[in-house]
Amino acid sequence: MDMSQPEDSAELRALYQAFRQNHLNPLWTQIGDLMPVHPKPKAVAHVWKWADLYPLAQQSGELVPVGRGGERRAIGLANPGLGGEAYISPTLWCAIQYLGAKETAPEHRHAQNAFRFVVEGEGVWTVVNGDPVRMSRGDFLLTPGWNFHGHHNETDQPMAWIDGLDIPFSYQNDVGFFEYGSDRVTDYATPEFSRGERLWCHPGLRPLSGLENSVSSPIGAYRWDYTDRALTEQLLLEEEGQPATYAQGHAAIRYVNPTTGGDVMPTIRAEFHRLRAGVETATRREVGSTVFQVFEGHGAVVMNGERKTLEKGDIFVIPSWVPWALEAETQFDLFRFSDAPIMERLNFARTLIEDTAA
Amino acid sequence: MDMSQPEDSAELRALYQAFRQNHLNPLWTQIGDLMPVHPKPKAVAHVWKWADLYPLAQQSGELVPVGRGGERRAIGLANPGLGGEAYISPTLWCAIQYLGAKETAPEHRHAQNAFRFVVEGEGVWTVVNGDPVRMSRGDFLLTPGWNFHGHHNETDQPMAWIDGLDIPFSYQNDVGFFEYGSDRVTDYATPEFSRGERLWCHPGLRPLSGLENSVSSPIGAYRWDYTDRALTEQLLLEEEGQPATYAQGHAAIRYVNPTTGGDVMPTIRAEFHRLRAGVETATRREVGSTVFQVFEGHGAVVMNGERKTLEKGDIFVIPSWVPWALEAETQFDLFRFSDAPIMERLNFARTLIEDTAA
Amino acid sequence: MDMSQPEDSAELRALYQAFRQNHLNPLWTQIGDLMPVHPKPKAVAHVWKWADLYPLAQQSGELVPVGRGGERRAIGLANPGLGGEAYISPTLWCAIQYLGAKETAPEHRHAQNAFRFVVEGEGVWTVVNGDPVRMSRGDFLLTPGWNFHGHHNETDQPMAWIDGLDIPFSYQNDVGFFEYGSDRVTDYATPEFSRGERLWCHPGLRPLSGLENSVSSPIGAYRWDYTDRALTEQLLLEEEGQPATYAQGHAAIRYVNPTTGGDVMPTIRAEFHRLRAGVETATRREVGSTVFQVFEGHGAVVMNGERKTLEKGDIFVIPSWVPWALEAETQFDLFRFSDAPIMERLNFARTLIEDTAA
Amino acid sequence: MDMSQPEDSAELRALYQAFRQNHLNPLWTQIGDLMPVHPKPKAVAHVWKWADLYPLAQQSGELVPVGRGGERRAIGLANPGLGGEAYISPTLWCAIQYLGAKETAPEHRHAQNAFRFVVEGEGVWTVVNGDPVRMSRGDFLLTPGWNFHGHHNETDQPMAWIDGLDIPFSYQNDVGFFEYGSDRVTDYATPEFSRGERLWCHPGLRPLSGLENSVSSPIGAYRWDYTDRALTEQLLLEEEGQPATYAQGHAAIRYVNPTTGGDVMPTIRAEFHRLRAGVETATRREVGSTVFQVFEGHGAVVMNGERKTLEKGDIFVIPSWVPWALEAETQFDLFRFSDAPIMERLNFARTLIEDTAA
Repeated sequence: MDMSQPEDSAELRALYQAFRQNHLNPLWTQIGDLMPVHPKPKAVAHVWKWADLYPLAQQSGELVPVGRGGERRAIGLANPGLGGEAYISPTLWCAIQYLGAKETAPEHRHAQNAFRFVVEGEGVWTVVNGDPVRMSRGDFLLTPGWNFHGHHNETDQPMAWIDGLDIPFSYQNDVGFFEYGSDRVTDYATPEFSRGERLWCHPGLRPLSGLENSVSSPIGAYRWDYTDRALTEQLLLEEEGQPATYAQGHAAIRYVNPTTGGDVMPTIRAEFHRLRAGVETATRREVGSTVFQVFEGHGAVVMNGERKTLEKGDIFVIPSWVPWALEAETQFDLFRFSDAPIMERLNFARTLIEDTAA
Repeated sequence: MDMSQPEDSAELRALYQAFRQNHLNPLWTQIGDLMPVHPKPKAVAHVWKWADLYPLAQQSGELVPVGRGGERRAIGLANPGLGGEAYISPTLWCAIQYLGAKETAPEHRHAQNAFRFVVEGEGVWTVVNGDPVRMSRGDFLLTPGWNFHGHHNETDQPMAWIDGLDIPFSYQNDVGFFEYGSDRVTDYATPEFSRGERLWCHPGLRPLSGLENSVSSPIGAYRWDYTDRALTEQLLLEEEGQPATYAQGHAAIRYVNPTTGGDVMPTIRAEFHRLRAGVETATRREVGSTVFQVFEGHGAVVMNGERKTLEKGDIFVIPSWVPWALEAETQFDLFRFSDAPIMERLNFARTLIEDTAA
Repeated sequence: MDMSQPEDSAELRALYQAFRQNHLNPLWTQIGDLMPVHPKPKAVAHVWKWADLYPLAQQSGELVPVGRGGERRAIGLANPGLGGEAYISPTLWCAIQYLGAKETAPEHRHAQNAFRFVVEGEGVWTVVNGDPVRMSRGDFLLTPGWNFHGHHNETDQPMAWIDGLDIPFSYQNDVGFFEYGSDRVTDYATPEFSRGERLWCHPGLRPLSGLENSVSSPIGAYRWDYTDRALTEQLLLEEEGQPATYAQGHAAIRYVNPTTGGDVMPTIRAEFHRLRAGVETATRREVGSTVFQVFEGHGAVVMNGERKTLEKGDIFVIPSWVPWALEAETQFDLFRFSDAPIMERLNFARTLIEDTAA
Repeated sequence: MDMSQPEDSAELRALYQAFRQNHLNPLWTQIGDLMPVHPKPKAVAHVWKWADLYPLAQQSGELVPVGRGGERRAIGLANPGLGGEAYISPTLWCAIQYLGAKETAPEHRHAQNAFRFVVEGEGVWTVVNGDPVRMSRGDFLLTPGWNFHGHHNETDQPMAWIDGLDIPFSYQNDVGFFEYGSDRVTDYATPEFSRGERLWCHPGLRPLSGLENSVSSPIGAYRWDYTDRALTEQLLLEEEGQPATYAQGHAAIRYVNPTTGGDVMPTIRAEFHRLRAGVETATRREVGSTVFQVFEGHGAVVMNGERKTLEKGDIFVIPSWVPWALEAETQFDLFRFSDAPIMERLNFARTLIEDTAA
């Protein structure tokens, strides 16, 4: 028996009634739920199979137009614990977006921060504040808050990719602004490299025209070629006995804003991980939510003790404080994004690495 | 008609059904709600009258025990727009807490950041990580995340005050941790000044034993005496023709962490405002939510064009982007807290000062 | 024999001659001096006795006018190792300044950062950017770079104090700018507290009119009353068994910029230390130079193993990496300033605490 | 006549004599020199011709051994205004270093920060904390403070390059430490890319094994290939009408620490500038001293109104506040280094851009 709860009585009921009438709600009846001993997310660990997602995106391509109003043919992954909302976690949005041959998604801008990651395909350019950015397999592409952006497909083939945004966080906390731009994209050029890349993608070199730090990264596209090379070098260095990898057999990079060395956007962290075949990571718990997409290889994720096998394109979410580990059957490449900058900037970040011995 | 929405058809319904089965939810049917042109909070502007709150707190004192389990006799202000949850806004919690004669609220700690503000009364000490802190009228008192704290009333009189926390934000984003401490407070001493104050409350002087910056302020109590003096000086300087006030006739201070000059806690900003009689502030809109409590004087707040008169103890909330202004009938003293550090650290802050001419 | 030095020869002499003609100078002949194994300052540890300084300042008051051109009746302490230059160390200037009854030192400003510390006397106001600042015993007063300032003595008595500046550093590195202001001070008012103090000297409270961080502290005067109270509280807390002092029996505060919690000016750190009677500090070596002035009490400093007794007003300098310790015969109060911000900001700071056992 | 200077008298002479005896020196006799209206450096603007430097370095190669004791066959450029000291400015050291066929310069480390820039040649590896770093034309190579380093020449040809350090600043301010390492280099491997490059030279990608910011850049070599490409892209973007260059026809990059986006070392800034043929820069004055070396092309520098023609390899120094401008006859490539981080971190930086019309 909880000694601190009041005994039921007519007076108590009258009091509770008066609370309701006056828009009040006592702490003592709900503290256990509101303030748990550790995070107990409503969101659940879940895997979406690319083999399911892609055909549904294709069908949308046939049935759903893309244009002003709907804005994007994007299908949000709805965490089964969150009541049907298109939230992959309380903070993050993840969608598969599909653009048919020769289609254009019109320009708009919003306070929400967005990125795209391309697990397969090519042929679309996203135009960010007038700078056309090619989208190709393995590329990580940024649309930080309040930058105009639209997409167009120059080919005869459709293309799909994933979008990541902070829509749930923005919606929940009432921070969103939105504005329409051009109904077309403002520049249909299809250069191999965007202007942002040409100015900023020279390692350790900063243009003198860009000495002011920017809130988000000025790099519009982080190319697969660089990511792959960075991971390859880490594993080679490890073989040479040098400190380079994140953990034994586990190479990883974080995408960063070159003006600060910090995260690419104020609310979203993005990384790429590569595990050697046979590697099993330690089991971790972290405050905040994380999403992975398998880029290449076979393996599994263990979340809350439950093992799920994974293949190329599969997407999974790890809610706050859920224990998780990865297992690589083959060399295993995964893209990752999370709300870690929110947790770190507000000092809520915590990590627990659990003993891996059974 | 919105050209971008698909035409209804059997195939479309089948697609939508497949979406639901696969835990998917399309953007195009919900973008207008999810990504509004400016923040459209569900939370509403609302005033709670102290004349209503205090008697209900008193009744709770008679009917509801305080102790382990319920932890606190705190009655949360529930924003009428948020479905009965004890959230004054999507990010903030505000409650009236009531401690009867000789009562003790047991020690615990939590990741959530907390403060107290005392609009009237005295006789309670809050013990924060073993440091007893006197609570008196006008004092602003801190319990930053993960500090053990309990309260005890040394007198024959009850005492009430307001608590402010980031409970809704923490709950929504799954960042909370909670731990019980002593069932009593660990130190029943009743010093006039806490150890934190004795070490840190010397203007411009930093102890050499405290050179590492702390995430939250090491000051446990910001005394009314200092606040009142600071505001008085600003108005005197204004009379002497010197720049000192926030706006004409409007003195204001922010409570800060002396190790950094920044906000007292990572998620909560606190300020005190004093308006000369007759002053009307400009109408502002701000991203993020704000709560005021009237400390002294008479006046009014205009929110969304609606004018509400205010008296000592009255509490009101201004949700994100709601236009608001204050009017002072007499000298008008108000305590304010908000989630501004969240908005600023994540780069969502925006302010719009509207034309004040009718 | 140093194997790396070339053998003397006609060709070598010709080469060295060609070096000189072409404004060249080889490293190999001078590396031992230029790049020693640890700092080997030319500046030496030295004590100036107040009993010598004050009478000479008085005589200057009789023989030397104060006014435009000479600007200040300030007598610089010239480190015996630095060839007669008025440099107490390679970075710092320390002077005794003397202002006779009813005299005015005219206004000027300079890029060099300056402060004053008052070991005895009163009656002078320094006017900093138009803000009159009373000078009294124990006060620490700021004139950060590029602020206009002049001094005037309102009484029938002369007054002396010490000035500290970064003149040697500024001169050596060619960073100085200088500009004349009014030939008089711009405000002869004699308020008890300056406007800067009235706006900023409220612990933990920041005016909303002053939310932008400033390079140097906006506080013009750090009053003795606060300093004394802060030190007293530290020693009382220590007696109560609480962590508060810098070391056992050794209370200390740093004067800080309230907008950042950091040093008062970009090049100069200032602190105040109080030792209980009988306390001997550990022996330390630090990169950078430090100056102390005894404020009250009797004791000694041991520098390079040499012990010098100290009395009120005595000033001593500790050059870089010279081992030093303090000994308190009575309660021993010392004001300290140093170039530590230079060392820390440029990452040259190092400290070595030596074993104190003989 | 300066009214503020005292009249000569026997008493005054006695006073001045007493000053000297007591190690004192008055401000009023020297203020004009010590505190000038703007920086009046003793260092002078000067050009060293590569055609003079290189042959003297060659001769040193014949006459002067390299090894422990002398440490380096480095010939410092001695500013003609600085009395023969091997200081190119009050803060900076610049030397030509020469390493003969098969020679090794032994390992040591020092608190002083160092870099090398290669205007021609190849075949030497510098080994920094055990990491062998190839040195080739156009490369900018780092040896931040307190890293062990040695050099070895693997070829049958000598090689020369320039060294830049903060030796004068370190010497003047007594911050230097020095320690011998191996008499040989610790790793004679000759990889094309150092481990630091392999880990860090992937634009916008940060290894997860390197999330802690470092005081100095972890990149040991900034390769010419990247620098050239970055400058080429800036000029191409300019031709396309895009903002990219520093000024019209003037491309420039700053070498940065990828962990922070800031300068490569705490005391030294390094940049590379490319001017289109025919471009003349605005005339600038800056606080702090700067050194340029011509990498390619023909042109001139105008310093203090005096024009000096420049060719490949020529080195010139611009002391503090000296007005300067560059003129490009051909495409004109220049490496630049300066003490700007010192000036900025200590808030002494100022720039004046003068009207360029005659």
